[in-house]
Amino acid sequence: MKKKTPARIFHINDIKDPHFLHELNYEELEILAREIKDEIIKATSVNGGHLSSNLGVTELTMALHRNFDFRKDKLLFDVGHQCYAHKILTGRDISKLRKKDGVSGFIKNSESPYDIFEAGHSSTSLSAALAYAMDRDNKKENYNVVTLIGDASIANGVSFEALNNIPHSSHKVIIVLNDNEMAISQPVGGMSNFFRLFQTSKGYAKVKKGFRHLLGFIKPLYKLASKIKNSIKRLLISTNIFDSLGFIYIGMIDGHDFEALDKAFKKAKKTTGSVIIHVRTVKGKGYPLAEKDYQGDWHGVAPFDINSGKPLNQHQGEISWSRVYSDFVLDRLKNDDKFYLICPGTLVGSELSEAIKQYPGRVIDTGISEEHAFILAANLAKLNYHVCVSIYSTFMQRGFDQISHDVARIHAPITVLVDRSGLVGDDGETHQGIYDSSFLFATPNINVGMASNLNEAYQLFDKSFMSKEATFIRLPRAYIKKKDIDKNYQLKDFNVIKSGEKNTVLVGVGPLTNELLEPLIGTDISLFSVAKLKPISKILINELLTYKNVVIYTPYETSNGYALNLLQELNRNLYKGNVYIKAIPLKYISHASVNEQLEDCGLLPIQVSNFIKQLKK
Amino acid sequence: MKKKTPARIFHINDIKDPHFLHELNYEELEILAREIKDEIIKATSVNGGHLSSNLGVTELTMALHRNFDFRKDKLLFDVGHQCYAHKILTGRDISKLRKKDGVSGFIKNSESPYDIFEAGHSSTSLSAALAYAMDRDNKKENYNVVTLIGDASIANGVSFEALNNIPHSSHKVIIVLNDNEMAISQPVGGMSNFFRLFQTSKGYAKVKKGFRHLLGFIKPLYKLASKIKNSIKRLLISTNIFDSLGFIYIGMIDGHDFEALDKAFKKAKKTTGSVIIHVRTVKGKGYPLAEKDYQGDWHGVAPFDINSGKPLNQHQGEISWSRVYSDFVLDRLKNDDKFYLICPGTLVGSELSEAIKQYPGRVIDTGISEEHAFILAANLAKLNYHVCVSIYSTFMQRGFDQISHDVARIHAPITVLVDRSGLVGDDGETHQGIYDSSFLFATPNINVGMASNLNEAYQLFDKSFMSKEATFIRLPRAYIKKKDIDKNYQLKDFNVIKSGEKNTVLVGVGPLTNELLEPLIGTDISLFSVAKLKPISKILINELLTYKNVVIYTPYETSNGYALNLLQELNRNLYKGNVYIKAIPLKYISHASVNEQLEDCGLLPIQVSNFIKQLKK
Repeated sequence: MKKKTPARIFHINDIKDPHFLHELNYEELEILAREIKDEIIKATSVNGGHLSSNLGVTELTMALHRNFDFRKDKLLFDVGHQCYAHKILTGRDISKLRKKDGVSGFIKNSESPYDIFEAGHSSTSLSAALAYAMDRDNKKENYNVVTLIGDASIANGVSFEALNNIPHSSHKVIIVLNDNEMAISQPVGGMSNFFRLFQTSKGYAKVKKGFRHLLGFIKPLYKLASKIKNSIKRLLISTNIFDSLGFIYIGMIDGHDFEALDKAFKKAKKTTGSVIIHVRTVKGKGYPLAEKDYQGDWHGVAPFDINSGKPLNQHQGEISWSRVYSDFVLDRLKNDDKFYLICPGTLVGSELSEAIKQYPGRVIDTGISEEHAFILAANLAKLNYHVCVSIYSTFMQRGFDQISHDVARIHAPITVLVDRSGLVGDDGETHQGIYDSSFLFATPNINVGMASNLNEAYQLFDKSFMSKEATFIRLPRAYIKKKDIDKNYQLKDFNVIKSGEKNTVLVGVGPLTNELLEPLIGTDISLFSVAKLKPISKILINELLTYKNVVIYTPYETSNGYALNLLQELNRNLYKGNVYIKAIPLKYISHASVNEQLEDCGLLPIQVSNFIKQLKK
Repeated sequence: MKKKTPARIFHINDIKDPHFLHELNYEELEILAREIKDEIIKATSVNGGHLSSNLGVTELTMALHRNFDFRKDKLLFDVGHQCYAHKILTGRDISKLRKKDGVSGFIKNSESPYDIFEAGHSSTSLSAALAYAMDRDNKKENYNVVTLIGDASIANGVSFEALNNIPHSSHKVIIVLNDNEMAISQPVGGMSNFFRLFQTSKGYAKVKKGFRHLLGFIKPLYKLASKIKNSIKRLLISTNIFDSLGFIYIGMIDGHDFEALDKAFKKAKKTTGSVIIHVRTVKGKGYPLAEKDYQGDWHGVAPFDINSGKPLNQHQGEISWSRVYSDFVLDRLKNDDKFYLICPGTLVGSELSEAIKQYPGRVIDTGISEEHAFILAANLAKLNYHVCVSIYSTFMQRGFDQISHDVARIHAPITVLVDRSGLVGDDGETHQGIYDSSFLFATPNINVGMASNLNEAYQLFDKSFMSKEATFIRLPRAYIKKKDIDKNYQLKDFNVIKSGEKNTVLVGVGPLTNELLEPLIGTDISLFSVAKLKPISKILINELLTYKNVVIYTPYETSNGYALNLLQELNRNLYKGNVYIKAIPLKYISHASVNEQLEDCGLLPIQVSNFIKQLKK
């Protein structure tokens, strides 16, 4: 028994490491949990971040640090967005969360020796855990390898490949499954049906009781079975997918009950094989507004007022690019009954909640399964449906094989909204949407576009449904002034923002290009924007050939996309002028604001206009 | 009952469509199966192709066409390599299988209305089947959607995402699981353990009998359970992973027994929910040499002598590039006990069977799970192991997200052997290894190389283990003259094959570059080859800047890899000469020999030398 000490107030900022946790009694743990939660609410209300999941796993994180010693044992966070309590317990100040000079919103090797495994994309921790377990067993060492993974993450193909491989190996891994019923958007799929078995309308406790009752009947048979060949026995007593795959299953545990968690972890440490501990947590636990959220609105939040829960409106009179396209999607859902929207787990992030609410039959959230989403979309499109896939650029990397093998190769005319293309700001290096276009430009039979204004956006989207090939529309994580859309706008090969001498021309991609106009006023420099990026316009090439200097400005991707392909076309046409490329350099760019990141890359409009003016001298 | 007609000889070449199958009795079906198998053996012995799997599914394919009407019902082949019986039954001549003027080795829309779903990569058919089922139900039509998928394919992440999604939807799909214990290399993972439950050493029949016996005891309890809440009942009677996910499970069925297959399909047609029919087939059934193959050597075969089974040696005195590197791998396994080889399902294809036989502890076949393989490899490398991943270029597309997010971002210094880089010949458009380098060149923190001779190959491989970053070594599907390796060879920034005037220089990548020497003798053209491709050598750039014409020859990739990145560097250095790029055009290239494909692309050394000579004039 832990010694009973009087309840006390903890000074979050004084915590250096989590070793004191095992000395606390349950009452003290509750008090500390409350204080950690308050700190998390405060930090996210100021900086934005992942609120619900971090409140949900606060007790679970404390219990992990209390039952294991992660100076020796290994703790891997899947995705890593649910690490705020972990950061506090390992002595970090989260007040400047996700800011340039603050801690990252994800696990970060460079911040702490407790952060051994970095991610950002889901479902990678199980494969990594196997590597740690192999290393331990090779060296005949003795410690625990523990992963914390959510229910949406574990129902993904990457996780499955690891789940399939781990029990086959002889290396023990402890998987803590944080089942909060809704990791990003709605829970989907057969695996989540299994999770839901435990929570019928009459409540989890009741089912559990009924189950125990039933076990009384089955016990004699169970004993008989255990005498029979092991293979047959397993066939009979297997109760769920994890068991079928060969894991020892411990569950379901209340993730807010320190005593139950202590017991489960003690049990898990004793087993010889790999274990799944199925923990049920309530997302947003400790912040009533987030607890009542059935849609995932409190999953990732912008700065908000703690009392009212209202977001601090930092973009008055503006509209996000996600919203621009989600309005088009809603419009299309309303007017085109052959239209389907397929979204692998990012409906809320791309502001598409309204779409699934109004048209549940034609909006399909496949969960975190980018590969499945693209194949499904491609085949629906081949069956003459109008299919739009909404996805983040960074997560689309998971679907590259399908984009080539299953979409482009068969000329499936889907429309893909590539949300968060370009620098994404505070989510940092794992989420930058800057690598996709290199691959898109190397894929036959597809079109790529990016609008620099609302009229172009509408045209790109609308015309994509008349195309015989797939259209990828990149859109940035940014805001634009609200404005009426002219639906009769004619999309041009290029847009002359400013016409100058036939000396220097800047060809820019995306909305930032417009911001070059002001600093270039009074110069003889021409300023074009391009929305149709692939295939490259011959009319544009012919125009560019008449200039001495061509500056290509692609601040939403590395040079390996539009910029190098435009250079290739100029070269094919024997262009002998000077070509300057202003694109995102080839590196992983850490968390900061988008503007700070652009500045570091030398890509702010003012920096580029200074560069171009200097050229002229 | 089918009417009994006398046994007869079938004329394979007279078959126009499969409708006659339902009129045959079981004896006739057996006779026809034998004839189809003989035709498959003959065609693959001449043209190469997938032998074992096609012999294994001959009866199953016949049974499918007998029980369904695929003018109305939909049949989707996963991967599509097991379609030879299907091609014969739908009236196609397979004698020129995989040849330029013959049928493809895969399903092909353009060949037949019975070929509705094209693939080449594994595990995509389930997602596609869902699209067909959705379409059927939307239109309130009434037909069956059937997929045929192997045990290795279904244990993949993409399949899992679909398996997880299908029962959640209300659209019925019939999945025929062809379990032949070894789809590409060894069966791996927990899911395959489940498959193996059915075949203990004492035989499948015995286990099945024991299981039935046991069911006698369990029946009363089963009845009791069925009265209780559905959710609890399912929890108790769930017997395997498919059942857990919500499928109706029918199995295990002997895939060579027409009567059993008839029964299973009849049952499957009657269910309301999605079904898995678990069929056990013997790979290579009907060709004794292939039946005895426990390693997968008869999975994909080169032309062979039917009687002896010996491959027709078409490459005397030569060695495949796969073998070149597999020898290096074996050497490393022998001398470096921190060395691991990880291979997602292509050990045999990359001639690495010997490696797993000799070093089963340090060679890991993860099955068809590219994503898991890369994460596991990256994390082992970060734990200071020397890790090599062997993979085909085309399948590596499945791991692009991991290459960026899990390998490059954390500077995991793995070595990747990118086998079958470049044009792959008879496997056709789904297998071309020409798209990977666009993405590799857009990924920070990694090195890319390709050898043009054995000494360079050795140095690229050997030095990769001293690198602090990942090294991707591309190797072609081609042969090279056997030769002793000089292990002291010094890898240069570029290799001067022929020194000419400072007028025109060709910079080539890969072994084909050497073949330019002969046609260029007597000209003043310089000929360089480059093995270290990324980062681009500054020494090379400085040299190229001194020439008037630079021809970049990259016949193993599209221009979006090395060629455009070299162009970018020349442009950065204000090069004003002429740059000509000879690379694979951006399109999907159909089956033919590699030489025929190169010729179509204008990339044969003789074509390029003619182009370059003409330049000079």
